Amino acid sequence: MAEIGRRARAAAQVLAQAPATQKDRALAAMAAAVRAQKAAILAANAEDIAEARASGADNAFVDRLSLNEARVEGIAAGIEAVQALKDPVGGVMDAWTRPNGMRIERVRVPLGVIGIIYESRPNVTADAGALCLKSGNAAILRGGSDSSRSSRAIHAALTQGLRAADLPEASISLVPTRDRAAVGQMLGGLDGNIDVIVPRGGKSLVARVQAEARVPVFAHLEGVVHVYVDKAASLDMAKTIVLNAKMRRTGVCGAAETLLVDRACASTHLKPLIEMLIEAGCEIRGDKAVQAVDARVKAASEEDWSTEYLDAIIAAKVVDGVDAAIAHIERYGSHHTDAIITDDQATADKFLTQVDSAIVLHNASTQFADGGEFGFGAEIGIATGRLHARGPVGVEQLTTFKYRIRGSGQIRP
Amino acid sequence: MAEIGRRARAAAQVLAQAPATQKDRALAAMAAAVRAQKAAILAANAEDIAEARASGADNAFVDRLSLNEARVEGIAAGIEAVQALKDPVGGVMDAWTRPNGMRIERVRVPLGVIGIIYESRPNVTADAGALCLKSGNAAILRGGSDSSRSSRAIHAALTQGLRAADLPEASISLVPTRDRAAVGQMLGGLDGNIDVIVPRGGKSLVARVQAEARVPVFAHLEGVVHVYVDKAASLDMAKTIVLNAKMRRTGVCGAAETLLVDRACASTHLKPLIEMLIEAGCEIRGDKAVQAVDARVKAASEEDWSTEYLDAIIAAKVVDGVDAAIAHIERYGSHHTDAIITDDQATADKFLTQVDSAIVLHNASTQFADGGEFGFGAEIGIATGRLHARGPVGVEQLTTFKYRIRGSGQIRP
Repeated sequence: MAEIGRRARAAAQVLAQAPATQKDRALAAMAAAVRAQKAAILAANAEDIAEARASGADNAFVDRLSLNEARVEGIAAGIEAVQALKDPVGGVMDAWTRPNGMRIERVRVPLGVIGIIYESRPNVTADAGALCLKSGNAAILRGGSDSSRSSRAIHAALTQGLRAADLPEASISLVPTRDRAAVGQMLGGLDGNIDVIVPRGGKSLVARVQAEARVPVFAHLEGVVHVYVDKAASLDMAKTIVLNAKMRRTGVCGAAETLLVDRACASTHLKPLIEMLIEAGCEIRGDKAVQAVDARVKAASEEDWSTEYLDAIIAAKVVDGVDAAIAHIERYGSHHTDAIITDDQATADKFLTQVDSAIVLHNASTQFADGGEFGFGAEIGIATGRLHARGPVGVEQLTTFKYRIRGSGQIRP
Repeated sequence: MAEIGRRARAAAQVLAQAPATQKDRALAAMAAAVRAQKAAILAANAEDIAEARASGADNAFVDRLSLNEARVEGIAAGIEAVQALKDPVGGVMDAWTRPNGMRIERVRVPLGVIGIIYESRPNVTADAGALCLKSGNAAILRGGSDSSRSSRAIHAALTQGLRAADLPEASISLVPTRDRAAVGQMLGGLDGNIDVIVPRGGKSLVARVQAEARVPVFAHLEGVVHVYVDKAASLDMAKTIVLNAKMRRTGVCGAAETLLVDRACASTHLKPLIEMLIEAGCEIRGDKAVQAVDARVKAASEEDWSTEYLDAIIAAKVVDGVDAAIAHIERYGSHHTDAIITDDQATADKFLTQVDSAIVLHNASTQFADGGEFGFGAEIGIATGRLHARGPVGVEQLTTFKYRIRGSGQIRP
């Protein structure tokens, strides 16, 4: 592992100086290699699946693990989508001239070496590797043991792409899953050779990484996402947005988990919203006021207000206006994504200003919490921490900056 | 301590929404209170000094601890300088409209609660408190026990300013120095009530904070600062800049610690540079080539190349051109501040691009490594980490951001 760290650091120094064209050539060659090695990737994946089934994995797990022709093509297309992004490295974020004539520029540079710890989805190998490379970072990948053969096969294609563009193979390293101590060593920072860790997986993985990491972490812990329907909300818009926010896909982190309805419009808006959700197949766990409108509403427990269901279930509550909605979100939310539906601009502004979440929306679905929907292209995750990367983490968020100063002999008085 | 954390978090929620005028009113009242309570502050400081002298503190220590009328006026003026800065909170850093009509803005918001752990300089109490307040953050201050009376007297003036502007007193808390466990508790994050720790002090303090903190740290560990004199450097400019970079003030983190001279100009440039430094009172520790030009040059040991002297001492070496200079800086430097002197633009660009330091300069003194010199106003320190804050940490660097999205009913397909 120490050797992997040293080689990654050396590769990062090469990548930091690599021109966009060279990185893009590697990405194009990676996509081509993934397509060319489709049969080998699918064969490796079949072995992973057979082993998972033999050890009694459930269907949802096997689905996350499984590749097929379309998914392999998706991996290749994903690499090409990253290739098509603008290279963030070298971009001037800000520039100004001091009274003494010195020109100061704030310039984007790569973070360095990024450690990615993930679980069973083999496509993360390619997604994360491509994003790190595009942003000039070396990547040290540690995937789940269940998908180790699939990840190795995909990694072989990435390595081939790096070689084709004369970039160091250590630009994207795959840590052997048989090395059980590897995760702990990565969390320790590999003697200063990992600059940031990105966990991609379930709550227990992310919680372990946050608890043990000795280097900065870009973690997305939970999305306890709220939609607040204000008294000045159009019922039609509220219905459209609530249905989409909850039911478009229930397993994504931007899916709504709690519905808050203003008491001042409960008599007109609550029943239609609840009935619509139930008819769409959603279970409702409500407070007394919500239970009163439909017999199918179950009673919410205290725990429901802070639960990320990632399922067709929603907690629902009647609140006394926008201030109570904000207070509820502050108390139970996870600072991820929250939305207000209202036609009152002042109320919307209050919500957008006071709700302390990475993403706050007015009259739009919370399912837009996604780097692609922001126009960032692919993302490595959505960060709920407050520092450096907050919200979708795309190639720009995988960079830092330095100050470049050009003078003509200036000295400080 | 837990109660201090909870009250700071509550204060941070108020500060995040406080208008610039209210924060500025508090800062003006703080400056006035510092001036009005000058006698009390000086009396408290006299007690701290007497105790330090009684326990055998050296003159340099007593000087760092000491206040006088001019220094108290400097503290008040420093608070007013922070007041005069632009409020960073609410500033729109970026804004764009998506094809579906959603408007996305990236807006500056405070970090939350900032823990500052410092040593004997009592002025840090006011500097750090004012910077945190201006940027909408609550501050939990833990100063050195040697200056505890001085810090308490200054803190009393800050509290008076907060009260005058109807802001919570917990906006700036001072942790009692008699609570020995307090630093450890702060490093643990006070149950999630500290968002970032800023250590201000010597190496051992910063190293302890970095080793033990469970929350992000904005740390300035060391400034092993290099000046590289290239073969295409004008000797006059090299002399002016090297003298200023090393000798203007030797105790600041932007002071040069290593001089690298291109072998291709050593015959013309080395001797004048070395003689100039010796005549200015600087000790030289050189490699063989540097020792050859002047008998007063001492032999440099391996350790000298990575030493931050903060004194009138410089390590000096002859290197084979810009590539060797960059390699030396990468091996021995601290990623803080490094400069090249050359009239060759291509060589300068290579140095500015390849040297991986927070601040890189061409033809200017390294002593410009300072928030004030960047135009940031006051700074809380210079960060050498790679994430979030890098280089001078002023009010903007004490903020983070959120995404504010305004729609008109958009849902995700």
